[in-house]
Amino acid sequence: MTSHAPFLLACRGEPVPYTPVWFMRQAGRYQPEYRALRERHAMLELLRTPELAAEVTKLPLALGVDAAIVFSDILLPFEPLGLGLRFVDGKGPVIDTPVRSAADVARLPPVTAAESLGFVGDAVRLVAADCGDTPVIGFSGAPFTLAAYAIEGGTSRDHVLTKQFMYREPAAWHALLDRLTEIAVDLLTLQVRAGAAALQVFDSWVGELTPDNYRTYVLPHTRRLFHRLVPLGVPLIYFGVATGSLLELMKEAGATVIGLGWRIPLDEARRRLGRTMPVQGNLDPAALFAPPAELRRQVLAILAANGGRPGHVFNTGHGIFPGTPVDHVRLVVDLVHEAGVSA
Amino acid sequence: MTSHAPFLLACRGEPVPYTPVWFMRQAGRYQPEYRALRERHAMLELLRTPELAAEVTKLPLALGVDAAIVFSDILLPFEPLGLGLRFVDGKGPVIDTPVRSAADVARLPPVTAAESLGFVGDAVRLVAADCGDTPVIGFSGAPFTLAAYAIEGGTSRDHVLTKQFMYREPAAWHALLDRLTEIAVDLLTLQVRAGAAALQVFDSWVGELTPDNYRTYVLPHTRRLFHRLVPLGVPLIYFGVATGSLLELMKEAGATVIGLGWRIPLDEARRRLGRTMPVQGNLDPAALFAPPAELRRQVLAILAANGGRPGHVFNTGHGIFPGTPVDHVRLVVDLVHEAGVSA
Repeated sequence: MTSHAPFLLACRGEPVPYTPVWFMRQAGRYQPEYRALRERHAMLELLRTPELAAEVTKLPLALGVDAAIVFSDILLPFEPLGLGLRFVDGKGPVIDTPVRSAADVARLPPVTAAESLGFVGDAVRLVAADCGDTPVIGFSGAPFTLAAYAIEGGTSRDHVLTKQFMYREPAAWHALLDRLTEIAVDLLTLQVRAGAAALQVFDSWVGELTPDNYRTYVLPHTRRLFHRLVPLGVPLIYFGVATGSLLELMKEAGATVIGLGWRIPLDEARRRLGRTMPVQGNLDPAALFAPPAELRRQVLAILAANGGRPGHVFNTGHGIFPGTPVDHVRLVVDLVHEAGVSA
Repeated sequence: MTSHAPFLLACRGEPVPYTPVWFMRQAGRYQPEYRALRERHAMLELLRTPELAAEVTKLPLALGVDAAIVFSDILLPFEPLGLGLRFVDGKGPVIDTPVRSAADVARLPPVTAAESLGFVGDAVRLVAADCGDTPVIGFSGAPFTLAAYAIEGGTSRDHVLTKQFMYREPAAWHALLDRLTEIAVDLLTLQVRAGAAALQVFDSWVGELTPDNYRTYVLPHTRRLFHRLVPLGVPLIYFGVATGSLLELMKEAGATVIGLGWRIPLDEARRRLGRTMPVQGNLDPAALFAPPAELRRQVLAILAANGGRPGHVFNTGHGIFPGTPVDHVRLVVDLVHEAGVSA
């Protein structure tokens, strides 16, 4: 019943009545309702309780966005993998037992999404049942980005431990990415079976790599990932930041839509990806702090760069920051919807 | 007497007997001699004592690099500006009194390099006197990157405070960049008068910006900066990371050489910049951790991407990391020198 939703039409490159829009981290700390929930519940409790996760997922629908992305976290598989996931306020995720050796990879226990991450599917199911006309997006981390968190033990400025592991232990690296690919396929499949109408694969940090490295150490895994997901029959969005030099290789991985970071002009990205490849993006999330006139100018510039072509989902080029004015998010939704699809 | 040094020839796009090479942070924590000095002297003491700074500057010459970059720090002007600069082990620079308002910009005191940063010139003079045949590189931060540190109060993952300031206080932003541009011109001029044979302007974080933002908020300042430096008659290198979408605009700023981050293939960068624009780069500094065979492969791939054209200075695409094996740095120097300049 959601198959004619503008978001899904745009993901398939079909004509739309208006440009659909959603935002990465559209449910999050910039919203007073979210902050109120976080005061009463720890992060992992919110994530693991389907009713609460569903409630958070639906919060941004009041802003008029065209899709609901399930409230979850790409690192949740680290719990059943025994890596010790914690969320530390002001610091982000901390992985207590990072993967640092071939032996660490070898001892990762088997994980199935149904057994250990069923609550993600349950949250998707609750939202899909409640918001029949709004597509629900399921997601997971991509194998590289999951490996980067697992190896670094959290966020990193330079991912130098990740690259050291990749270079020095190539067999263990590929074994690790094999495992993470299987887990991602399993978790994404679970979400589609629960009602997700599209999937996004977050390869947030893959832009740290040179094209040469991406081809050798990552592409075999992302290609297998998307190959396994295609039979699910839903649009597959592949997102990363600072990927200006990787776009052609990311396209080779086989997703339906390429999610763009904010650095690359949208028209340049579309030219390089080919005019029929749908794209998502790519407002700098920091622009949401700009005064309305400047924010408006930047939103219209992105729509103009697309030039009314089919296959554009408007989004930020990375997650919305805490402290973002809610009325600016609403302004962008309204502006994108009202601008129509003509250049 | 250094004017026929391969490094300077390459910066001017002239033929060279072999590809010259130096590394960002070539004097630093990966060297046991540097760590020994740091055990006896605090960071600011090393930076402010010309004899010690000169000693550190010369350390990597034993590895065979083709230029010596003066041991200094782009944030040193923050001391006379009253921003309270400290270096915290394991965390990096901390600015105690960040710039957060138009009033903060207005109250910045006048600063002249000769009065407050003369020790940088003294260090350059000592190195130039002692290493007559090796060109000495002077440097400063670029106005955007200096502003980003001043506003954020240190390093930042997302530079969201910087962008907020830029959007919300455009007049104060431009006033701040005016001041930082003048300070950079002054400090760079001082270094050339002390014997620097080339200058590098570090715009390390400018790749956080969209091309549209760069054009509006940064280019007027970098253009003025390089316009003021051209009469000094030395090569001017303009460096930043994640600048794949900014290269053409960075070229407009008017430097002699564009310093590339590691993400963009060197042949693509040269094609976009025009074949006569010299470039510097661009080995991923993390590749220095790779086993010799893989490291060798990546170095040769960069040389092959250049294809023997004049105007290539080999370097890393960002600073060398602590923990980098010294013998791998030496291996790269030897390999680049021995590979000659033919494709």
